[in-house]
Amino acid sequence: MPQGHVSETPDDGLTTRQRRNRPLLMIHTGDGKGKSTAAFGLALRAWNQGWSTAVFQFVKSAKWRIGEQSALEQLDRAHQDSGVGGPIEWHKMGSGWSWTRRAGSDDDHAAAAAEGWREIKRRLAAEQHQFYVLDEFSYPINWGWVDLDDVVATLTQRPGNQHVIITGRRMPQELLGAADLVTGMTKIKHPFDAGQKGQRGIEW
Amino acid sequence: MPQGHVSETPDDGLTTRQRRNRPLLMIHTGDGKGKSTAAFGLALRAWNQGWSTAVFQFVKSAKWRIGEQSALEQLDRAHQDSGVGGPIEWHKMGSGWSWTRRAGSDDDHAAAAAEGWREIKRRLAAEQHQFYVLDEFSYPINWGWVDLDDVVATLTQRPGNQHVIITGRRMPQELLGAADLVTGMTKIKHPFDAGQKGQRGIEW
Repeated sequence: MPQGHVSETPDDGLTTRQRRNRPLLMIHTGDGKGKSTAAFGLALRAWNQGWSTAVFQFVKSAKWRIGEQSALEQLDRAHQDSGVGGPIEWHKMGSGWSWTRRAGSDDDHAAAAAEGWREIKRRLAAEQHQFYVLDEFSYPINWGWVDLDDVVATLTQRPGNQHVIITGRRMPQELLGAADLVTGMTKIKHPFDAGQKGQRGIEW
Repeated sequence: MPQGHVSETPDDGLTTRQRRNRPLLMIHTGDGKGKSTAAFGLALRAWNQGWSTAVFQFVKSAKWRIGEQSALEQLDRAHQDSGVGGPIEWHKMGSGWSWTRRAGSDDDHAAAAAEGWREIKRRLAAEQHQFYVLDEFSYPINWGWVDLDDVVATLTQRPGNQHVIITGRRMPQELLGAADLVTGMTKIKHPFDAGQKGQRGIEW
């Protein structure tokens, strides 16, 4: 069983409890599937802990992630209605971030991505959530819409106990270096190879 | 963006719609994290489609997967109460499968695993669900508790439109061969390497 075990005790001056509760910067990368899906699976654990979760979806597509979004919004409703679990917010760039009033900002992806990152910075500084999903965040970084050095500095210096998970292909090396946990998803076999198209319930 | 695209049209006599709705056998394997988490993430999409989902958890641990279980059970409740999404059942071997009456079967893991697989076979034959998660199912197979040839034959010949996802390390080659989609999760960097212990909300 993949139970975690510790090979040595680090000389970092932290108690076991402090070390156990250390906030993590996690990355899911690689060309395979499951990067985002596993991040949303982690959000289920965060919800169950009663943590406040915020998803920032840096992709443009109406149907993309709609299944996960609906399910996590349902869990948020359960929290609002019955107090179970924690609150979950889902913000997506595609239709204009929900906290902005501008409707037409959809056309300028670079500005929208930068605005998304600024909001994440504000929330990290305010310690607004315990769990952040920055979905497909490697793309706006790689396209130069969000400054990599700013991202690395902000995330490594974030205050309090805020877990962050970033997904996406071609993750910048500096970000991999700053992360506590990096998992690579690799395509071993895919139905697209056999001419299979994406299907409802599986791909979205 | 990782949108699926088809490189060639296969000569299999199927219409695009038939091909699109082909039931998939999916596998998440490798030594990295996210194998099960991504499977439960897929269950969110299945739920959103209104599909009937059943999780069979072939691991023994009280806290293991408790976050995902609580969240998916909450989604099932939302379905029962308000008709949104689909039903989700969660069965685990650790505490004795929920459909058996025997309490003491906990001690005989081999018998419990075999009983779990028999139930899955019954449900596949009856086309009871649209989405099955066989979590950590490679272990009982590798330990000889469940017959590999029977698993491969049953899954490749399953009737109707039933999607199946199997997770676990060291997946048998015959099962990989039978699968439509195989994703490998690889550990690139892990906090356990730096003496970090598993923590609530992240590991369970």
